[in-house]
Amino acid sequence: MARTRGSHSDITGPRVERAALRLFAKHGYAAVSMRQIATEVGVQAGALYNYTPDKQMLLVSLMKTHMQDLLAAYEAWPKPVDPLGRLEAFTRFHLSFNSERPEAVFISYMELRNLTPEHFNEIAALRSRYERALVEILEDGVQDGIFQLEDARVTAFAIIGMLTQVNTWFREDGRLSRADVEALYWTMVQRLVSA
Amino acid sequence: MARTRGSHSDITGPRVERAALRLFAKHGYAAVSMRQIATEVGVQAGALYNYTPDKQMLLVSLMKTHMQDLLAAYEAWPKPVDPLGRLEAFTRFHLSFNSERPEAVFISYMELRNLTPEHFNEIAALRSRYERALVEILEDGVQDGIFQLEDARVTAFAIIGMLTQVNTWFREDGRLSRADVEALYWTMVQRLVSA
Repeated sequence: MARTRGSHSDITGPRVERAALRLFAKHGYAAVSMRQIATEVGVQAGALYNYTPDKQMLLVSLMKTHMQDLLAAYEAWPKPVDPLGRLEAFTRFHLSFNSERPEAVFISYMELRNLTPEHFNEIAALRSRYERALVEILEDGVQDGIFQLEDARVTAFAIIGMLTQVNTWFREDGRLSRADVEALYWTMVQRLVSA
Repeated sequence: MARTRGSHSDITGPRVERAALRLFAKHGYAAVSMRQIATEVGVQAGALYNYTPDKQMLLVSLMKTHMQDLLAAYEAWPKPVDPLGRLEAFTRFHLSFNSERPEAVFISYMELRNLTPEHFNEIAALRSRYERALVEILEDGVQDGIFQLEDARVTAFAIIGMLTQVNTWFREDGRLSRADVEALYWTMVQRLVSA
C-alpha cells in the first residue's frame, strides 16, 4: 500500500488500517464504504487516497499484513529442535497469536471471497507457507518415529482448524482460563499424532 | 417467517430464501438490500414483504432453517447404540451434511454478528443442542471406558471445528476423494478420544 511519508501519515496510515479492520469485521467488506472508513478515522474521504488507491488494496493490505505478522511472529517464537517440542511451540503460538487479534483472524478467513484472483493467490501463498511449517514438523516427527499419522497435510489442516476455532467460543469470563485451553489443546494435538 | 398461502408463495418463498442465501454468502448480509434479493428472484421489491417482514427475519429464517435441518437430518441418520459407532456416525454425518450446503454453513458462522441478541440466543440454543449430542456420545464413551479425554465439551468443540473446516479447503478435483477425507477424519477423531 502506497503511503506518503512524514509524521502525519505515520499516524494516520495505521489509524486507517485499524478503522478498516474494525468496520470490515463488524459489517463485512462489501458493506463498508471508503466514506465510512474516513468518518471513523476523522478525515475527509479524499484524504484516504493518500494511503490506499482503493478499498480492495486496503483489504489486501490488511490480510497481507496479518499473514506477514503471523509468519514473522512464528519465526521469532522460541522453538526447540525436536519435532515434539516444535509441535508444542506451534500449538501454543497459534492459540496465543490468534487470541490477540480476533478481528484480523475473522477477516482473513471471511473476506477471501472478496479478493481478486491475483490477490487471493498472493494471500494463499502466504498461508501455505505457514501451513507448510506445520506439515514439516509432522513429517519430521514421522521420520523420527515419534509421530504416527495417515496424511501430514490433512492432519495439519485438522490441527489448524481446531486451534483457529477457539476464537469462536472462548470467553475470558468462562469456566476455562487461556492456560487451561492451551493445555487441553496441546494434549489433543499430541493425541492426534501419537504413535 | 410469515408467508401468504397458495401455489404462488409455495414457489416464491423458497426462491426468496435461495436467492438471499446466495447473495448473503457472496456479499455478506449487510451489503445486500431487499431490492437486490427481489431482483435476483425476479419480483418487485414490495412483493418480498409477503414472505418476510424484513431482512433481519430473512437471515434469522435462513439460519434457523439450517440448524433445524441439521438437527432433523442428524436425528434421522442411522446410528448404532455403542459410543464408538455413534461417534463414527456423528463424524460421517457432519462431513456429509456440511459438504452439501457450503453457503448455509458459511453464513451460519459468519453472520452470527448480524443477529439481534434475541435471535442470536435462539440460534445459539439450536447449535447447543447439536453440540450437546456430541458431548453425550463422548461422555457415554468415557463412562464405558472406551474413550479417554480430558474435557468432553472442549473435545466436542475441537471435533466440530476440525470437521467444519473441511469445507474451506476440500476441492472435488483435488488429490483426495470425499471418501478418503471421511476416512482420514474418522481416524483422527478416534485418535482424539483413544484410551
